[in-house]
Amino acid sequence: MRVEPIVLMTDFGVSDPFVGMMKGVISGISPAARVIDLTHGIRAQDVYHGAFILYRSFRYFPRGSIFCAVVDPGVGTGRWPMAIQTRDYLFVGPDNGLLWPAASDNGIKACICLDRPEFFLERLSATFHGRDIFAPVAAHLSRGISLEKMGSPMEAPHQLILPEPEFQDGRLSLTVLDVDIYGNLTLNIRIPDFASRSDSGFSLHFGRQTVTRQVQAYAEAPDNQPVVLGGSSGFMEIAVKNGSAAAFLGAAVGDRLFLTPAPPD
Amino acid sequence: MRVEPIVLMTDFGVSDPFVGMMKGVISGISPAARVIDLTHGIRAQDVYHGAFILYRSFRYFPRGSIFCAVVDPGVGTGRWPMAIQTRDYLFVGPDNGLLWPAASDNGIKACICLDRPEFFLERLSATFHGRDIFAPVAAHLSRGISLEKMGSPMEAPHQLILPEPEFQDGRLSLTVLDVDIYGNLTLNIRIPDFASRSDSGFSLHFGRQTVTRQVQAYAEAPDNQPVVLGGSSGFMEIAVKNGSAAAFLGAAVGDRLFLTPAPPD
Amino acid sequence: MRVEPIVLMTDFGVSDPFVGMMKGVISGISPAARVIDLTHGIRAQDVYHGAFILYRSFRYFPRGSIFCAVVDPGVGTGRWPMAIQTRDYLFVGPDNGLLWPAASDNGIKACICLDRPEFFLERLSATFHGRDIFAPVAAHLSRGISLEKMGSPMEAPHQLILPEPEFQDGRLSLTVLDVDIYGNLTLNIRIPDFASRSDSGFSLHFGRQTVTRQVQAYAEAPDNQPVVLGGSSGFMEIAVKNGSAAAFLGAAVGDRLFLTPAPPD
Repeated sequence: MRVEPIVLMTDFGVSDPFVGMMKGVISGISPAARVIDLTHGIRAQDVYHGAFILYRSFRYFPRGSIFCAVVDPGVGTGRWPMAIQTRDYLFVGPDNGLLWPAASDNGIKACICLDRPEFFLERLSATFHGRDIFAPVAAHLSRGISLEKMGSPMEAPHQLILPEPEFQDGRLSLTVLDVDIYGNLTLNIRIPDFASRSDSGFSLHFGRQTVTRQVQAYAEAPDNQPVVLGGSSGFMEIAVKNGSAAAFLGAAVGDRLFLTPAPPD
Repeated sequence: MRVEPIVLMTDFGVSDPFVGMMKGVISGISPAARVIDLTHGIRAQDVYHGAFILYRSFRYFPRGSIFCAVVDPGVGTGRWPMAIQTRDYLFVGPDNGLLWPAASDNGIKACICLDRPEFFLERLSATFHGRDIFAPVAAHLSRGISLEKMGSPMEAPHQLILPEPEFQDGRLSLTVLDVDIYGNLTLNIRIPDFASRSDSGFSLHFGRQTVTRQVQAYAEAPDNQPVVLGGSSGFMEIAVKNGSAAAFLGAAVGDRLFLTPAPPD
Repeated sequence: MRVEPIVLMTDFGVSDPFVGMMKGVISGISPAARVIDLTHGIRAQDVYHGAFILYRSFRYFPRGSIFCAVVDPGVGTGRWPMAIQTRDYLFVGPDNGLLWPAASDNGIKACICLDRPEFFLERLSATFHGRDIFAPVAAHLSRGISLEKMGSPMEAPHQLILPEPEFQDGRLSLTVLDVDIYGNLTLNIRIPDFASRSDSGFSLHFGRQTVTRQVQAYAEAPDNQPVVLGGSSGFMEIAVKNGSAAAFLGAAVGDRLFLTPAPPD
């Protein structure tokens, strides 16, 4: 029997034993399952951040992969655990929108409300459904148990839409979707979209600061000057060579910048 | 041949190559062994912290798992490397009490002093027995070599007992056993024990601060106010919603709090 | 078919999804490959640091292991991706010297310029060759595709030599090669070399501070006093018991210290 890989994404970090316990549970139910950590560095309880990271990453995993994603500020309250079957993948996690951008991009076939406790750990805690519900469900799925057996169809799943660029006062308003370890800022504008709006120059404003230069690779940037470049996720990034654009500009996830098509005089 | 999983727990962190080298050694001796990281975020050289994390986590791993745990301030000195056979598991690590709470909870069958260097790496360093002794021993065990061949019975293993709640001046003194990435504090009192002492209200004192509110889930807590709730390890926790109870109270692992059964007037 | 393990070393950290995406790519191309993280904590863009960590670690992995190492400040510019066949291993990474100390120590058999895009992902980003080039090449190699098919012989690979101790004004100048999570400093002098220069005492100078004491194990050190000891990589280290030698001395990777054979009066 082919056992599909289980891909974990959480905001649990790697200093606590939470991810390890999830792997222990998976290993007990599905001993042959390979588990891959996508990341456990999602910003604590930031569902939008997790939704973006899953969205930008899922396509690099092989068909059949089972994503078990947990960013779950509502754990223990009314939100349901859910699983989604898409064209190529299975997604397991809380019904708070976390799975939505990735799943809908891949083509949703079915949304299931995980309401069959026989696929959970016997004793549920109120605060750690990653270990008690999501990990065991993903492990059962990896053994080939069909999604339909796991629960009932979900009527109205929570639909989270990542922010799109929008016009405000003649300028295009952009949002910071991610800040990576180097301090590079990922913006919510795709590379070809940016290109079509900047062919005769551009100006990107954040507070009183302005970015006007584009490069193709980090090493081409001048020192101590923020630049934009096409990032590896298909979105534009702001970077500072040998430094942090986030620190340079004082920008964080969720912040807004404004793009104008022509450079300032 | 079934190859049991090897579960690693250390205070090595994940920025250095120490854990990677241990996995390289294991992979050379037992190529089919699956290795699971429980955590490498134990507080540096804090044997009590490691003992608690192992104790609260081991039961989520499948029967037959081999725990290889290294928090070892005495490395290179007189303390012996040891292995313990329990009812369901094998534990490998230094004889400093680290393995004791988990192993004794599971029922100890045999304690072995690892005194057969043929199961170690050929060249021993004085400072990295995780790589040179514990990883190779765990790898040999995962291949089915019996514990008895690995060494002699250990006469008087180091017995570490995790602190229990104790009465002082009419109040129950509790100890912080763990602080997780969110700043939640795990206390050394079990959920039913706390319930029986707080059914007509409670007051939990830390310095001049007092916690009097209990919730069932993180999301139920009011903003900016510490609450207690039953944690996923079976012990009570203190949490602050969207914040850090550790930072809010200024509390750390090892600190003491005092529980009184009735709320203050 | 035997599938060799793939060992990853990067400066990507573990908070971002970069390493996870590399594993997704590997898993799609070579589903049976086991992937081991050596470390992702190399100092950002510090090729020397990465070269030393790979050099001190590679020998603990089984013969046949494929090292996929990415510390790549020049990504997207003229530097070529490369692979090296050595006596026992394969190394994949950028041609910037990162692989050189480890590979040359193991005996280089062939250096290949990775110029066959059919072994890369179809769409290359300019900034993430770890995912788009190095991971897929390592995955193809793990399936047994021969190195020669992957590219052309490389004429003049970038040769990085780790700094050796050198005499300056009658003193031996040493360099800090690594600082670990405990704050221990690894120096570029091997244990027997240090022994031969210190048999009648030594004095190690860093700025106005001096280290004159040697111990065999961390636990033997006095409190609040830096000591030298033979480290687990075969090089001398400076440590402070229950503290950080890096913080105590204010020293970092790349800093220089001076060794004089006799102790000060």
